[in-house]
Amino acid sequence: MASNQLGKFLVLTTFGESHGLAIGGILDGYPAGIKIDSEAIQNQLDRRKPGQNILTTQRKEEDKIELLSGIFEGTSTGAPIAWVIINKDAKSKDYSNIKDVYRPSHADFVYQEKYGIRDYRGGGRSSARETANWVVGGALASFILRELHIVVSAYTSQIGLYKANVEIRKYSKAEVDKSIIRMPNEPESEKAEKYLTSIKKNGDTVGGAITCVVDGMPVGVGEPIFDKLNANLAKAMFSINAVKGFELGSGFNSIEMTGAEHNDEFVNEDGIVRTKTNHSGGIQGGISNGMPINFRVAFKPVATIMTSQNTIDSSKNETSLQVKGRHDPCVVPRAVPIVEALTSLIIADLLLIKKLNKL
Amino acid sequence: MASNQLGKFLVLTTFGESHGLAIGGILDGYPAGIKIDSEAIQNQLDRRKPGQNILTTQRKEEDKIELLSGIFEGTSTGAPIAWVIINKDAKSKDYSNIKDVYRPSHADFVYQEKYGIRDYRGGGRSSARETANWVVGGALASFILRELHIVVSAYTSQIGLYKANVEIRKYSKAEVDKSIIRMPNEPESEKAEKYLTSIKKNGDTVGGAITCVVDGMPVGVGEPIFDKLNANLAKAMFSINAVKGFELGSGFNSIEMTGAEHNDEFVNEDGIVRTKTNHSGGIQGGISNGMPINFRVAFKPVATIMTSQNTIDSSKNETSLQVKGRHDPCVVPRAVPIVEALTSLIIADLLLIKKLNKL
Amino acid sequence: MASNQLGKFLVLTTFGESHGLAIGGILDGYPAGIKIDSEAIQNQLDRRKPGQNILTTQRKEEDKIELLSGIFEGTSTGAPIAWVIINKDAKSKDYSNIKDVYRPSHADFVYQEKYGIRDYRGGGRSSARETANWVVGGALASFILRELHIVVSAYTSQIGLYKANVEIRKYSKAEVDKSIIRMPNEPESEKAEKYLTSIKKNGDTVGGAITCVVDGMPVGVGEPIFDKLNANLAKAMFSINAVKGFELGSGFNSIEMTGAEHNDEFVNEDGIVRTKTNHSGGIQGGISNGMPINFRVAFKPVATIMTSQNTIDSSKNETSLQVKGRHDPCVVPRAVPIVEALTSLIIADLLLIKKLNKL
Amino acid sequence: MASNQLGKFLVLTTFGESHGLAIGGILDGYPAGIKIDSEAIQNQLDRRKPGQNILTTQRKEEDKIELLSGIFEGTSTGAPIAWVIINKDAKSKDYSNIKDVYRPSHADFVYQEKYGIRDYRGGGRSSARETANWVVGGALASFILRELHIVVSAYTSQIGLYKANVEIRKYSKAEVDKSIIRMPNEPESEKAEKYLTSIKKNGDTVGGAITCVVDGMPVGVGEPIFDKLNANLAKAMFSINAVKGFELGSGFNSIEMTGAEHNDEFVNEDGIVRTKTNHSGGIQGGISNGMPINFRVAFKPVATIMTSQNTIDSSKNETSLQVKGRHDPCVVPRAVPIVEALTSLIIADLLLIKKLNKL
Repeated sequence: MASNQLGKFLVLTTFGESHGLAIGGILDGYPAGIKIDSEAIQNQLDRRKPGQNILTTQRKEEDKIELLSGIFEGTSTGAPIAWVIINKDAKSKDYSNIKDVYRPSHADFVYQEKYGIRDYRGGGRSSARETANWVVGGALASFILRELHIVVSAYTSQIGLYKANVEIRKYSKAEVDKSIIRMPNEPESEKAEKYLTSIKKNGDTVGGAITCVVDGMPVGVGEPIFDKLNANLAKAMFSINAVKGFELGSGFNSIEMTGAEHNDEFVNEDGIVRTKTNHSGGIQGGISNGMPINFRVAFKPVATIMTSQNTIDSSKNETSLQVKGRHDPCVVPRAVPIVEALTSLIIADLLLIKKLNKL
Repeated sequence: MASNQLGKFLVLTTFGESHGLAIGGILDGYPAGIKIDSEAIQNQLDRRKPGQNILTTQRKEEDKIELLSGIFEGTSTGAPIAWVIINKDAKSKDYSNIKDVYRPSHADFVYQEKYGIRDYRGGGRSSARETANWVVGGALASFILRELHIVVSAYTSQIGLYKANVEIRKYSKAEVDKSIIRMPNEPESEKAEKYLTSIKKNGDTVGGAITCVVDGMPVGVGEPIFDKLNANLAKAMFSINAVKGFELGSGFNSIEMTGAEHNDEFVNEDGIVRTKTNHSGGIQGGISNGMPINFRVAFKPVATIMTSQNTIDSSKNETSLQVKGRHDPCVVPRAVPIVEALTSLIIADLLLIKKLNKL
Repeated sequence: MASNQLGKFLVLTTFGESHGLAIGGILDGYPAGIKIDSEAIQNQLDRRKPGQNILTTQRKEEDKIELLSGIFEGTSTGAPIAWVIINKDAKSKDYSNIKDVYRPSHADFVYQEKYGIRDYRGGGRSSARETANWVVGGALASFILRELHIVVSAYTSQIGLYKANVEIRKYSKAEVDKSIIRMPNEPESEKAEKYLTSIKKNGDTVGGAITCVVDGMPVGVGEPIFDKLNANLAKAMFSINAVKGFELGSGFNSIEMTGAEHNDEFVNEDGIVRTKTNHSGGIQGGISNGMPINFRVAFKPVATIMTSQNTIDSSKNETSLQVKGRHDPCVVPRAVPIVEALTSLIIADLLLIKKLNKL
Repeated sequence: MASNQLGKFLVLTTFGESHGLAIGGILDGYPAGIKIDSEAIQNQLDRRKPGQNILTTQRKEEDKIELLSGIFEGTSTGAPIAWVIINKDAKSKDYSNIKDVYRPSHADFVYQEKYGIRDYRGGGRSSARETANWVVGGALASFILRELHIVVSAYTSQIGLYKANVEIRKYSKAEVDKSIIRMPNEPESEKAEKYLTSIKKNGDTVGGAITCVVDGMPVGVGEPIFDKLNANLAKAMFSINAVKGFELGSGFNSIEMTGAEHNDEFVNEDGIVRTKTNHSGGIQGGISNGMPINFRVAFKPVATIMTSQNTIDSSKNETSLQVKGRHDPCVVPRAVPIVEALTSLIIADLLLIKKLNKL
């Protein structure tokens, strides 16, 4: 099935394998008349790219985007916007040990079983390299949101045991990127960085969490019954390989709350309807209520570790695997722009669709 | 947009308002040659219906299904299967107090803003009454799963502070339904029942959690990149109005784990590939790996409470609201068959789609 | 696959077999705030229903529509609009001779091969009875068009050798329905009626053509590259079982024309852009250009004839078949409201989508 | 809307403007394990490309395809297959006269009205250059068909008044390409060539027709009610800008036929069900019946002519336009591989979907 697509009317279609010639995508359904800021796209790509600092994989990729269509004199035309990103640092000799051995908690085994063939080089299609395409799509979507003063902002809220412990609100990119792990709280981020450095030294990895806030939401975004805003956000986040959990507003804490505690009472603030609390996380009945959206995403530890692991080979024989090479000790810092990208794509799509609610 | 639809190839389309003439749906893409067990459908509907016991709303609905098409001599024909459920206990005089006042943490406000009109009777389209349709669709989907020996089983794992504390595994309907709150652990369920009774007496409500396990999964179900099995399950669960969180396998606990702890090593068990641990929750890279799927869903407390609340009216004036009438103190026990239904629909759909991976 | 659906955003989903309990449908994506005129729906249904006059099948169906949802106090709410039409005159004893014998040029054989089972009663799902659902959907769509002063009007332009020979323009329902065969040209329609009467007497059938004109089209309806207005109209018309050809504007005549003859020169008529000729049939590059849309649809003779035919049975043995009972000598007069309905659905859908071309 | 997509599960998404950097596409939903013959793709591209001979536009484009993904060691992997074709002969000085003047019967006017902006260089997105992408997608689809011995074959059946007058059957590419206008009938094709040469000399253009035959079809391809095989073929053909008509089997001739003449009686030919005649064109009830599919497509004369025409400019002032440069006198010979490509895509898609009819 055509499952390499995200969105209903603003549709991102992507392609490419980790160590193939190129990755890329097409964003279709993009409205005409939007100013396209190529530099802003490249900036977001740079936030995601490998080799940014000592706590990310040392794969060297410029991730230089080439926009191929849909833009005329700097403005979108309504035609599909396509791009490619050439793979430059595809090390073609690294694969012998993973060709016939399934890495634990990777997708090697399921791809091989599902398709009977797989491009094992660097994980092929299942590689997180694909997320560079999402960042491009998300940046394009953000230009739509910008026209309506909607801002999507994510940050690292936890790495292992280390929590950001900050107010859940929009943070500027400058505030977030001040620390290389994108945790907007100086003493905490320093501790987490030190922890990550030691984790990396051990060849191990660790999980983490990202919090995302969307500010400036109009009321009415999200479609009942099966295209709710929260449902689409949850789905998008679970498209990230490492994601294990998603919660909106009060999330799992709501389990132990009572209705009297949890309900968000409506108030009139200078003519604008708001709620006193925001346990709803900005979404009620699947539809934005005008309050800031906030959600939290749990990331498992990166599956690629540098210590020996037991596993099986393609003939189902038990064996052990010792991976060498490049890896991230925690996916979360580089996943911040990915979470922003997916969020922007989902919101832009449902924002456009909202126009069809009335004639 | 046509957002009242769930699924890619096996598509459920639903209609109906809480206090309209009827609710119903169409399940399209249903394969020919499947035995349809009408009684099994009714049984699942009965597990969801109101008025089952003292801990559910006293609205009286038989929820009697009428199947209208797509079945010939007890077998599916490949034509769409349609049904209606007539609304019988639609109390038409109850609405005056919610016509112009927005109930906190309900969808009244967002529907009114979005559409400029709403059927306020019993919440109209945003009512959980709609979920009866999902139960029908899910029961139909389960007949497909049954042919492949796939079993979907959900149970109440928490109500307020009270946790089931049981092994995460498949429980039979008998085991689950032994307690009216569907928690398969007798001492714990009794405590939770007592708690719920007191909550109800106070006119309050409380949250809870459901755990769902899918047993007998073949390898390879779920489509990369944007129709992953976990992503579709997350989306489906967030279609339930009260859901605030979703986690797969290790879920939010994975944040604090290291890769060495978290990775699921592959083993060969009598020729079958399995993993030693199952932090992955049965899904890797968005694709089932043959281990049992397990996930947990967080439910907020029911928004309808019997105590006075501050809110605004349709002219944005602040006012207060005192709801009277019928309500559930906790949505979770009745949501168990709903979680099963959505899970069955998602898996049956992706199971069919898997046939297209190879010619 | 969920193939019982027409439309992208305004989506009609239908169900029902010819001799099942009921047929019906759901129209999802319908904008809020549209006045619903139930009587107008019933009127169009009456134009399609069997037993209207001596030149239509004598099956007795009231085709009384019951609207079930999506409408509140006479106005659409944005929720899906559902309906059922109960089958009343399903003669349950007529099937023995077609249960195991495939009627030539019917869908019996292909359904049986495709699904391994079929509801043979009255043709089951493949029966033209289904088109009653389309007429309901089309009437609902026409209420959207009405708000924008767009009028869809079809008429019988040919029956066998008898052509209407009238100007290609919008005709009122009164003008069209003056003759029972819906040919708006009195001397010609009388000849055609007489011819049809003789055809019927012989137990034979004949083909015909319908011309459809859409007046009041705004510029810009239709989406490049693969959802062009003409492409969607062609697809919709070929959803009618008896349709064998579709041509837009100059159609097949354009084969023998030169560019200098065929090109439609633009002119400015009191500030409005129009074309001098309309060989384009109102559509250029798949997008409406503001001129009236016109197209012609070819219908084959009804496959149910009363004379003996050679065929095979379900064991592939050659046999002969003598059908008895009720039939139309020509499908075209009753297909006029069907062509209007499908056209209205396609245009309303693309009209809504056009709103997404710009932010 | 994402309308640059063709197909349900095997989905072609395309991008690119006539004189932009590149055109290209993604074919998603392609099954794993299919041998990819790059040379065969290039061959079909060469049949479509400009500058093939004196009767095609002299634009010089190599149309060299670069495959970017989805193929591993010559075999499809189930991942999306992407490609780009670089635009080389984009003459960037030719546009001044069409920037502000709308060419009659082109899409300039409707694009400008629809989007408020357009890439006018060479027609931008509305250019037939896009069809090179379709040929790539179609060639890829044909590799799926080949595994099932299904052959799609199209030829020029008419140019202006000159008809091929040949039996409607499959012709080999060699038979078709023997004449540069792809009419498989030597004396007729020579006359038509001469006629086209004179038409070109006059700076004029002419219409034509293509007949397409699909041989080796299994029974059961095509999905009721709204994804019928004929309906999807009709839609695909009307995606070609110049197409004005489509007819299946008996087509418009069926209008004047009686049921007794038109019905295709079933016969048993050595155990295989066939029909004595094939007025149905291989499709009944929207589903293939195993007989060869045949349809005919009408093409209008190319809108770009070299003589002066009246039109309006972007300020709606009447003016005249004299186009200079490169053009085809008739689109039909180069459209033969395009018709084949679209047909292959539609059939491969529905062939895959057929697998879902039963579990």
